[in-house]
Amino acid sequence: MSVGEPIPIVGGSGALGFGLALRFAAAGRAVTIGSRDPARAQETAARVRDRVPGATVTGVENVDAASRGSIVFLTVPFRAQSENLTNLRAALAAGQILVDATAPLAAAISGKATRLLGVPQGSAAQQAQEMVPDGVSVVSALHTVSAARLRDLDVDLDEDVLVTGDRKEDKRRVAEVIEAITGLRPVNAGALEAARFVEALTPLLIGVNVRNRTHAGVKLTNLPDKLW
Amino acid sequence: MSVGEPIPIVGGSGALGFGLALRFAAAGRAVTIGSRDPARAQETAARVRDRVPGATVTGVENVDAASRGSIVFLTVPFRAQSENLTNLRAALAAGQILVDATAPLAAAISGKATRLLGVPQGSAAQQAQEMVPDGVSVVSALHTVSAARLRDLDVDLDEDVLVTGDRKEDKRRVAEVIEAITGLRPVNAGALEAARFVEALTPLLIGVNVRNRTHAGVKLTNLPDKLW
Repeated sequence: MSVGEPIPIVGGSGALGFGLALRFAAAGRAVTIGSRDPARAQETAARVRDRVPGATVTGVENVDAASRGSIVFLTVPFRAQSENLTNLRAALAAGQILVDATAPLAAAISGKATRLLGVPQGSAAQQAQEMVPDGVSVVSALHTVSAARLRDLDVDLDEDVLVTGDRKEDKRRVAEVIEAITGLRPVNAGALEAARFVEALTPLLIGVNVRNRTHAGVKLTNLPDKLW
Repeated sequence: MSVGEPIPIVGGSGALGFGLALRFAAAGRAVTIGSRDPARAQETAARVRDRVPGATVTGVENVDAASRGSIVFLTVPFRAQSENLTNLRAALAAGQILVDATAPLAAAISGKATRLLGVPQGSAAQQAQEMVPDGVSVVSALHTVSAARLRDLDVDLDEDVLVTGDRKEDKRRVAEVIEAITGLRPVNAGALEAARFVEALTPLLIGVNVRNRTHAGVKLTNLPDKLW
Protein backbone atom coordinates (compact mmCIF):
# COMPACT_ATOMS: atom_id res chain seq x y z
CA MET A 1 0.00 0.00 0.00
CA SER A 2 1.11 3.55 -0.63
CA VAL A 3 2.01 5.66 2.39
CA GLY A 4 -0.75 8.15 1.53
CA GLU A 5 -3.46 5.49 1.49
CA PRO A 6 -5.53 5.46 4.71
CA ILE A 7 -5.40 2.57 7.14
CA PRO A 8 -8.99 1.61 7.99
CA ILE A 9 -9.52 0.36 11.54
CA VAL A 10 -12.85 -1.39 12.03
CA GLY A 11 -13.62 -1.07 15.72
CA GLY A 12 -11.29 1.90 15.88
CA SER A 13 -13.12 3.41 18.85
CA GLY A 14 -12.19 0.45 21.03
CA ALA A 15 -9.06 0.37 23.18
CA LEU A 16 -6.78 -1.49 20.76
CA GLY A 17 -8.16 0.29 17.70
CA PHE A 18 -7.69 3.72 19.23
CA GLY A 19 -4.16 2.88 20.34
CA LEU A 20 -3.26 1.70 16.85
CA ALA A 21 -4.87 4.74 15.25
CA LEU A 22 -2.83 7.01 17.48
CA ARG A 23 0.46 5.26 16.73
CA PHE A 24 -0.20 5.11 12.97
CA ALA A 25 -1.12 8.79 13.00
CA ALA A 26 2.03 9.60 14.97
CA ALA A 27 3.98 7.70 12.29
CA GLY A 28 2.51 10.03 9.68
CA ARG A 29 0.02 7.57 8.25
CA ALA A 30 -3.54 8.46 7.28
CA VAL A 31 -6.12 6.54 9.31
CA THR A 32 -9.84 5.93 8.88
CA ILE A 33 -11.51 5.12 12.19
CA GLY A 34 -14.51 2.85 11.83
CA SER A 35 -17.20 2.50 14.45
CA ARG A 36 -20.74 1.15 14.53
CA ASP A 37 -21.81 4.69 15.35
CA PRO A 38 -20.41 7.27 12.88
CA ALA A 39 -20.64 10.05 15.50
CA ARG A 40 -18.46 7.99 17.82
CA ALA A 41 -15.99 7.35 14.97
CA GLN A 42 -15.75 11.09 14.32
CA GLU A 43 -15.30 11.81 18.01
CA THR A 44 -12.47 9.23 18.19
CA ALA A 45 -10.84 10.71 15.09
CA ALA A 46 -10.95 14.12 16.76
CA ARG A 47 -9.26 12.66 19.87
CA VAL A 48 -6.46 11.31 17.66
CA ARG A 49 -6.05 14.66 15.90
CA ASP A 50 -5.91 16.41 19.31
CA ARG A 51 -3.03 14.18 20.38
CA VAL A 52 -1.26 14.16 17.01
CA PRO A 53 -1.52 17.65 15.52
CA GLY A 54 -1.72 17.58 11.74
CA ALA A 55 -2.81 13.94 11.60
CA THR A 56 -4.97 12.83 8.67
CA VAL A 57 -7.64 10.92 10.56
CA THR A 58 -11.32 10.63 9.70
CA GLY A 59 -14.14 8.73 11.36
CA VAL A 60 -16.91 6.87 9.54
CA GLU A 61 -19.19 3.87 10.02
CA ASN A 62 -17.37 0.52 10.08
CA VAL A 63 -18.74 -0.60 6.72
CA ASP A 64 -17.63 2.65 5.09
CA ALA A 65 -14.20 2.43 6.67
CA ALA A 66 -13.58 -1.06 5.32
CA SER A 67 -13.50 0.06 1.70
CA ARG A 68 -11.10 2.97 2.27
CA GLY A 69 -7.82 1.07 2.16
CA SER A 70 -6.25 -2.16 0.92
CA ILE A 71 -5.21 -3.37 4.39
CA VAL A 72 -8.07 -3.25 6.89
CA PHE A 73 -7.56 -3.77 10.63
CA LEU A 74 -10.31 -5.50 12.60
CA THR A 75 -10.06 -4.72 16.32
CA VAL A 76 -13.40 -5.68 17.81
CA PRO A 77 -14.10 -7.96 20.78
CA PHE A 78 -14.71 -11.61 19.84
CA ARG A 79 -18.37 -11.23 20.82
CA ALA A 80 -18.77 -8.74 17.97
CA GLN A 81 -16.43 -10.35 15.43
CA SER A 82 -18.95 -12.51 13.61
CA GLU A 83 -21.57 -9.73 13.37
CA ASN A 84 -18.96 -7.31 12.06
CA LEU A 85 -17.74 -9.79 9.47
CA THR A 86 -21.30 -10.32 8.26
CA ASN A 87 -21.73 -6.56 7.89
CA LEU A 88 -18.37 -6.26 6.10
CA ARG A 89 -19.22 -8.85 3.45
CA ALA A 90 -20.67 -6.14 1.20
CA ALA A 91 -17.79 -3.72 1.87
CA LEU A 92 -14.71 -5.91 1.48
CA ALA A 93 -13.53 -6.84 -1.99
CA ALA A 94 -11.12 -9.37 -3.48
CA GLY A 95 -7.52 -8.25 -3.14
CA GLN A 96 -7.98 -6.63 0.24
CA ILE A 97 -6.22 -7.93 3.36
CA LEU A 98 -8.10 -8.12 6.64
CA VAL A 99 -5.82 -7.99 9.69
CA ASP A 100 -7.65 -9.78 12.47
CA ALA A 101 -6.60 -8.99 16.04
CA THR A 102 -9.41 -10.89 17.75
CA ALA A 103 -8.76 -13.26 20.65
CA PRO A 104 -11.67 -15.58 21.49
CA LEU A 105 -11.64 -14.81 25.21
CA ALA A 106 -14.25 -16.47 27.40
CA ALA A 107 -15.11 -12.90 28.43
CA ALA A 108 -17.24 -12.89 25.26
CA ILE A 109 -19.73 -15.13 27.12
CA SER A 110 -19.27 -13.44 30.50
CA GLY A 111 -16.48 -15.87 31.37
CA LYS A 112 -12.92 -15.01 32.34
CA ALA A 113 -10.56 -13.02 30.15
CA THR A 114 -7.86 -15.52 31.16
CA ARG A 115 -9.71 -18.34 29.40
CA LEU A 116 -10.07 -19.08 25.71
CA LEU A 117 -13.17 -20.33 23.92
CA GLY A 118 -12.91 -23.15 21.43
CA VAL A 119 -13.71 -21.81 17.96
CA PRO A 120 -15.14 -24.36 15.49
CA GLN A 121 -12.83 -23.14 12.71
CA GLY A 122 -9.80 -23.47 15.01
CA SER A 123 -9.28 -19.80 15.83
CA ALA A 124 -10.91 -16.40 15.55
CA ALA A 125 -8.68 -15.72 12.55
CA GLN A 126 -9.91 -18.82 10.76
CA GLN A 127 -13.50 -17.84 11.53
CA ALA A 128 -12.70 -14.52 9.87
CA GLN A 129 -11.17 -16.26 6.84
CA GLU A 130 -14.31 -18.37 6.48
CA MET A 131 -16.56 -15.30 6.60
CA VAL A 132 -14.79 -12.78 4.35
CA PRO A 133 -15.65 -12.60 0.63
CA ASP A 134 -13.63 -14.75 -1.77
CA GLY A 135 -10.26 -13.24 -2.54
CA VAL A 136 -9.95 -11.38 0.76
CA SER A 137 -6.94 -12.65 2.65
CA VAL A 138 -6.95 -12.78 6.45
CA VAL A 139 -3.72 -12.10 8.32
CA SER A 140 -3.74 -12.46 12.11
CA ALA A 141 -1.69 -10.12 14.29
CA LEU A 142 -1.43 -7.77 17.28
CA HIS A 143 -2.75 -10.10 20.00
CA THR A 144 0.08 -9.37 22.41
CA VAL A 145 0.35 -5.60 22.08
CA SER A 146 -1.06 -3.64 24.99
CA ALA A 147 -3.69 -1.06 24.11
CA ALA A 148 -2.69 0.94 27.17
CA ARG A 149 0.91 1.18 26.02
CA LEU A 150 -0.09 2.02 22.44
CA ARG A 151 -2.26 4.92 23.54
CA ASP A 152 0.47 6.44 25.70
CA LEU A 153 2.71 8.03 23.09
CA ASP A 154 5.37 8.65 25.74
CA VAL A 155 5.90 4.89 26.05
CA ASP A 156 8.76 3.49 23.98
CA LEU A 157 7.57 0.17 22.61
CA ASP A 158 10.03 -2.69 22.23
CA GLU A 159 8.26 -5.93 21.43
CA ASP A 160 7.22 -8.39 18.75
CA VAL A 161 4.03 -8.81 16.79
CA LEU A 162 3.45 -12.44 15.84
CA VAL A 163 1.91 -12.51 12.37
CA THR A 164 0.17 -15.55 10.88
CA GLY A 165 -1.46 -16.06 7.53
CA ASP A 166 -1.53 -18.36 4.56
CA ARG A 167 0.15 -16.05 2.04
CA LYS A 168 3.65 -14.91 2.85
CA GLU A 169 3.41 -11.86 0.59
CA ASP A 170 0.29 -10.68 2.45
CA LYS A 171 2.04 -11.15 5.80
CA ARG A 172 4.98 -9.16 4.47
CA ARG A 173 2.67 -6.32 3.42
CA VAL A 174 1.02 -6.28 6.85
CA ALA A 175 4.44 -6.40 8.51
CA GLU A 176 5.45 -3.33 6.53
CA VAL A 177 2.43 -1.40 7.86
CA ILE A 178 2.98 -2.54 11.46
CA GLU A 179 6.66 -1.61 11.24
CA ALA A 180 5.60 1.99 10.77
CA ILE A 181 5.05 1.94 14.53
CA THR A 182 8.45 2.37 16.13
CA GLY A 183 9.33 -0.44 18.51
CA LEU A 184 7.08 -3.12 17.03
CA ARG A 185 8.90 -5.97 15.29
CA PRO A 186 6.63 -8.17 13.16
CA VAL A 187 7.62 -11.86 13.14
CA ASN A 188 6.25 -14.45 10.73
CA ALA A 189 4.62 -16.99 13.07
CA GLY A 190 3.34 -19.38 10.43
CA ALA A 191 0.18 -20.28 8.55
CA LEU A 192 -3.23 -19.00 9.60
CA GLU A 193 -3.88 -22.27 11.45
CA ALA A 194 -1.12 -21.19 13.86
CA ALA A 195 -3.21 -18.14 14.80
CA ARG A 196 -4.72 -20.25 17.59
CA PHE A 197 -1.31 -20.36 19.28
CA VAL A 198 -0.94 -16.59 19.10
CA GLU A 199 -4.54 -15.88 20.13
CA ALA A 200 -3.82 -17.97 23.26
CA LEU A 201 -1.18 -15.45 24.28
CA THR A 202 -3.85 -12.83 24.96
CA PRO A 203 -5.46 -14.63 27.94
CA LEU A 204 -2.00 -15.68 29.12
CA LEU A 205 -0.76 -12.08 29.12
CA ILE A 206 -3.97 -10.83 30.74
CA GLY A 207 -3.24 -13.16 33.66
CA VAL A 208 0.38 -12.02 33.84
CA ASN A 209 -0.77 -8.39 33.74
CA VAL A 210 -3.23 -8.82 36.60
CA ARG A 211 -0.68 -10.64 38.76
CA ASN A 212 2.05 -8.07 38.12
CA ARG A 213 -0.01 -4.91 37.58
CA THR A 214 1.67 -4.30 34.27
CA HIS A 215 1.08 -4.44 30.52
CA ALA A 216 3.38 -7.19 29.31
CA GLY A 217 4.27 -7.92 25.72
CA VAL A 218 6.14 -10.72 23.97
CA LYS A 219 9.54 -10.84 22.38
CA LEU A 220 11.13 -13.84 20.71
CA THR A 221 14.80 -14.27 21.50
CA ASN A 222 17.62 -15.29 19.20
CA LEU A 223 16.05 -14.24 15.90
CA PRO A 224 18.16 -13.10 12.95
CA ASP A 225 18.18 -9.43 11.95
CA LYS A 226 16.57 -10.14 8.60
CA LEU A 227 13.11 -11.57 9.21
CA TRP A 228 11.23 -10.84 5.98
CA MET B 1 14.62 -28.42 48.22
CA SER B 2 18.12 -28.37 49.58
CA VAL B 3 20.92 -27.59 47.17
CA GLY B 4 22.54 -30.98 47.86
CA GLU B 5 19.39 -32.93 46.97
CA PRO B 6 19.55 -34.39 43.47
CA ILE B 7 17.29 -33.20 40.68
CA PRO B 8 15.73 -36.24 39.02
CA ILE B 9 15.10 -35.92 35.28
CA VAL B 10 12.78 -38.58 33.89
CA GLY B 11 13.65 -38.83 30.21
CA GLY B 12 17.05 -37.34 30.98
CA SER B 13 18.66 -39.02 27.97
CA GLY B 14 16.45 -37.04 25.58
CA ALA B 15 17.48 -33.72 24.09
CA LEU B 16 15.74 -31.42 26.59
CA GLY B 17 16.55 -33.67 29.58
CA PHE B 18 20.21 -33.85 28.68
CA GLY B 19 20.41 -30.09 28.17
CA LEU B 20 18.81 -29.45 31.55
CA ALA B 21 21.05 -32.01 33.25
CA LEU B 22 24.10 -30.29 31.82
CA ARG B 23 22.99 -26.82 32.93
CA PHE B 24 21.97 -27.98 36.41
CA ALA B 25 25.30 -29.78 36.77
CA ALA B 26 27.16 -26.68 35.60
CA ALA B 27 25.26 -24.76 38.30
CA GLY B 28 26.65 -27.13 40.91
CA ARG B 29 23.45 -29.10 41.40
CA ALA B 30 23.34 -32.89 41.80
CA VAL B 31 21.34 -34.56 39.02
CA THR B 32 19.84 -38.02 38.64
CA ILE B 33 19.33 -38.90 34.99
CA GLY B 34 16.44 -41.27 34.40
CA SER B 35 16.01 -43.34 31.26
CA ARG B 36 13.96 -46.36 30.28
CA ASP B 37 17.26 -48.18 29.82
CA PRO B 38 19.55 -47.85 32.88
CA ALA B 39 22.66 -48.38 30.74
CA ARG B 40 21.63 -45.42 28.59
CA ALA B 41 21.02 -43.35 31.74
CA GLN B 42 24.53 -44.15 32.99
CA GLU B 43 26.02 -43.34 29.61
CA THR B 44 24.21 -39.96 29.58
CA ALA B 45 25.39 -39.26 33.14
CA ALA B 46 28.95 -39.98 32.02
CA ARG B 47 28.52 -37.53 29.12
CA VAL B 48 27.43 -34.84 31.58
CA ARG B 49 30.41 -35.54 33.87
CA ASP B 50 32.74 -35.33 30.86
CA ARG B 51 31.43 -31.86 30.03
CA VAL B 52 31.16 -30.67 33.65
CA PRO B 53 34.16 -32.04 35.57
CA GLY B 54 33.33 -32.78 39.19
CA ALA B 55 29.58 -32.93 38.57
CA THR B 56 27.47 -35.15 40.82
CA VAL B 57 25.43 -36.93 38.19
CA THR B 58 24.18 -40.51 38.26
CA GLY B 59 22.06 -42.48 35.82
CA VAL B 60 19.30 -44.93 36.77
CA GLU B 61 16.05 -46.29 35.40
CA ASN B 62 13.24 -43.68 35.19
CA VAL B 63 11.22 -45.22 38.02
CA ASP B 64 14.25 -45.24 40.30
CA ALA B 65 15.11 -41.65 39.41
CA ALA B 66 11.64 -40.37 40.30
CA SER B 67 12.04 -41.13 44.01
CA ARG B 68 15.44 -39.49 44.36
CA GLY B 69 14.32 -35.89 44.81
CA SER B 70 11.35 -33.76 45.81
CA ILE B 71 11.11 -31.92 42.47
CA VAL B 72 11.08 -34.32 39.52
CA PHE B 73 11.41 -33.14 35.91
CA LEU B 74 9.53 -35.03 33.21
CA THR B 75 11.07 -34.42 29.77
CA VAL B 76 9.70 -37.15 27.54
CA PRO B 77 7.93 -36.80 24.18
CA PHE B 78 4.12 -36.60 24.40
CA ARG B 79 3.87 -40.05 22.80
CA ALA B 80 5.61 -41.50 25.86
CA GLN B 81 4.11 -39.23 28.55
CA SER B 82 1.13 -41.38 29.49
CA GLU B 83 3.15 -44.61 29.63
CA ASN B 84 5.78 -42.91 31.78
CA LEU B 85 3.18 -41.52 34.15
CA THR B 86 1.65 -44.98 34.54
CA ASN B 87 5.07 -46.39 35.39
CA LEU B 88 5.77 -43.54 37.81
CA ARG B 89 2.59 -44.10 39.84
CA ALA B 90 4.42 -46.49 42.14
CA ALA B 91 7.48 -44.26 42.42
CA LEU B 92 6.00 -40.83 43.06
CA ALA B 93 4.69 -39.98 46.52
CA ALA B 94 2.53 -37.26 48.04
CA GLY B 95 4.48 -34.05 48.59
CA GLN B 96 6.58 -34.38 45.44
CA ILE B 97 6.33 -31.90 42.58
CA LEU B 98 6.37 -33.15 39.01
CA VAL B 99 7.59 -30.56 36.52
CA ASP B 100 6.01 -31.43 33.20
CA ALA B 101 7.70 -30.10 30.06
CA THR B 102 5.59 -32.04 27.58
CA ALA B 103 4.04 -30.40 24.53
CA PRO B 104 1.33 -32.45 22.80
CA LEU B 105 2.78 -32.05 19.31
CA ALA B 106 1.05 -33.81 16.43
CA ALA B 107 4.46 -35.37 15.81
CA ALA B 108 3.38 -37.89 18.46
CA ILE B 109 1.07 -39.40 15.85
CA SER B 110 3.44 -38.88 12.91
CA GLY B 111 1.89 -35.46 12.25
CA LYS B 112 3.68 -32.14 12.11
CA ALA B 113 5.69 -30.72 15.00
CA THR B 114 4.09 -27.36 14.17
CA ARG B 115 0.65 -28.68 15.09
CA LEU B 116 -0.86 -29.40 18.48
CA LEU B 117 -3.08 -32.32 19.43
CA GLY B 118 -6.21 -31.77 21.47
CA VAL B 119 -5.76 -33.39 24.88
CA PRO B 120 -9.00 -34.46 26.62
CA GLN B 121 -7.87 -32.99 29.93
CA GLY B 122 -7.05 -29.66 28.25
CA SER B 123 -3.27 -29.95 28.12
CA ALA B 124 -0.44 -32.42 28.58
CA ALA B 125 0.13 -30.92 32.03
CA GLN B 126 -3.45 -31.59 33.06
CA GLN B 127 -3.16 -35.13 31.76
CA ALA B 128 -0.14 -35.47 34.03
CA GLN B 129 -2.05 -34.02 36.99
CA GLU B 130 -4.83 -36.55 36.40
CA MET B 131 -2.37 -39.46 36.33
CA VAL B 132 -0.01 -38.74 39.24
CA PRO B 133 -0.75 -40.16 42.69
CA ASP B 134 -2.83 -38.04 45.09
CA GLY B 135 -0.78 -35.33 46.74
CA VAL B 136 1.71 -35.00 43.87
CA SER B 137 1.54 -31.51 42.42
CA VAL B 138 2.14 -30.91 38.72
CA VAL B 139 3.86 -27.72 37.63
CA SER B 140 4.25 -27.08 33.90
CA ALA B 141 7.37 -25.38 32.55
CA LEU B 142 10.22 -25.26 30.04
CA HIS B 143 8.25 -25.51 26.80
CA THR B 144 10.03 -22.65 25.12
CA VAL B 145 13.63 -23.39 26.07
CA SER B 146 15.76 -24.77 23.26
CA ALA B 147 17.48 -28.07 24.01
CA ALA B 148 20.20 -27.16 21.52
CA ARG B 149 21.01 -23.95 23.39
CA LEU B 150 20.89 -25.65 26.77
CA ARG B 151 23.39 -28.29 25.75
CA ASP B 152 25.88 -25.74 24.42
CA LEU B 153 27.38 -24.39 27.62
CA ASP B 154 29.08 -21.63 25.65
CA VAL B 155 25.67 -20.12 24.89
CA ASP B 156 24.55 -17.35 27.24
CA LEU B 157 20.86 -17.85 27.83
CA ASP B 158 18.58 -14.82 28.24
CA GLU B 159 14.95 -15.82 28.18
CA ASP B 160 11.85 -16.60 30.20
CA VAL B 161 10.36 -19.85 31.42
CA LEU B 162 6.58 -19.63 31.68
CA VAL B 163 5.50 -21.62 34.73
CA THR B 164 1.92 -22.73 35.37
CA GLY B 165 0.42 -24.70 38.24
CA ASP B 166 -2.38 -24.61 40.76
CA ARG B 167 -0.28 -23.97 43.87
CA LYS B 168 1.74 -20.77 43.94
CA GLU B 169 4.17 -22.12 46.54
CA ASP B 170 4.97 -25.11 44.32
CA LYS B 171 5.54 -22.82 41.34
CA ARG B 172 7.83 -20.71 43.49
CA ARG B 173 9.86 -23.78 44.49
CA VAL B 174 10.18 -24.85 40.86
CA ALA B 175 11.15 -21.30 39.89
CA GLU B 176 13.93 -21.42 42.47
CA VAL B 177 15.35 -24.59 40.89
CA ILE B 178 15.08 -23.23 37.34
CA GLU B 179 16.75 -19.97 38.38
CA ALA B 180 19.85 -21.97 39.19
CA ILE B 181 20.42 -21.92 35.44
CA THR B 182 21.89 -18.54 34.59
CA GLY B 183 19.86 -16.61 32.04
CA LEU B 184 16.53 -18.32 32.63
CA ARG B 185 13.86 -16.12 34.25
CA PRO B 186 10.84 -18.06 35.54
CA VAL B 187 7.53 -16.20 35.19
CA ASN B 188 4.27 -17.21 36.87
CA ALA B 189 1.95 -17.79 33.90
CA GLY B 190 -1.13 -18.82 35.85
CA ALA B 191 -3.05 -21.90 36.93
CA LEU B 192 -2.39 -25.32 35.43
CA GLU B 193 -5.29 -24.83 33.02
CA ALA B 194 -3.18 -22.11 31.39
CA ALA B 195 -0.54 -24.74 30.54
CA ARG B 196 -2.36 -25.21 27.23
CA PHE B 197 -1.39 -21.68 26.23
CA VAL B 198 2.26 -22.31 27.04
CA GLU B 199 2.34 -25.76 25.44
CA ALA B 200 1.11 -24.07 22.26
CA LEU B 201 4.31 -22.04 22.15
CA THR B 202 6.35 -25.14 21.37
CA PRO B 203 4.85 -25.77 17.91
CA LEU B 204 4.83 -22.01 17.28
CA LEU B 205 8.55 -21.73 18.04
CA ILE B 206 9.35 -24.87 16.04
CA GLY B 207 7.85 -23.14 13.00
CA VAL B 208 9.77 -19.94 13.70
CA ASN B 209 12.95 -21.96 14.12
CA VAL B 210 12.56 -23.78 10.82
CA ARG B 211 11.81 -20.54 8.94
CA ASN B 212 14.74 -18.69 10.47
CA ARG B 213 17.22 -21.54 11.05
CA THR B 214 17.52 -20.59 14.69
CA HIS B 215 16.53 -21.69 18.19
CA ALA B 216 14.18 -18.98 19.40
CA GLY B 217 12.98 -18.51 22.95
CA VAL B 218 10.40 -16.28 24.59
CA LYS B 219 10.72 -13.22 26.76
CA LEU B 220 7.88 -11.20 28.22
CA THR B 221 8.43 -7.47 28.11
CA ASN B 222 7.62 -4.86 30.72
CA LEU B 223 7.64 -7.12 33.78
CA PRO B 224 8.63 -5.83 37.22
CA ASP B 225 11.95 -6.91 38.76
CA LYS B 226 10.28 -8.76 41.58
CA LEU B 227 8.27 -11.62 40.10
CA TRP B 228 7.91 -14.10 42.98
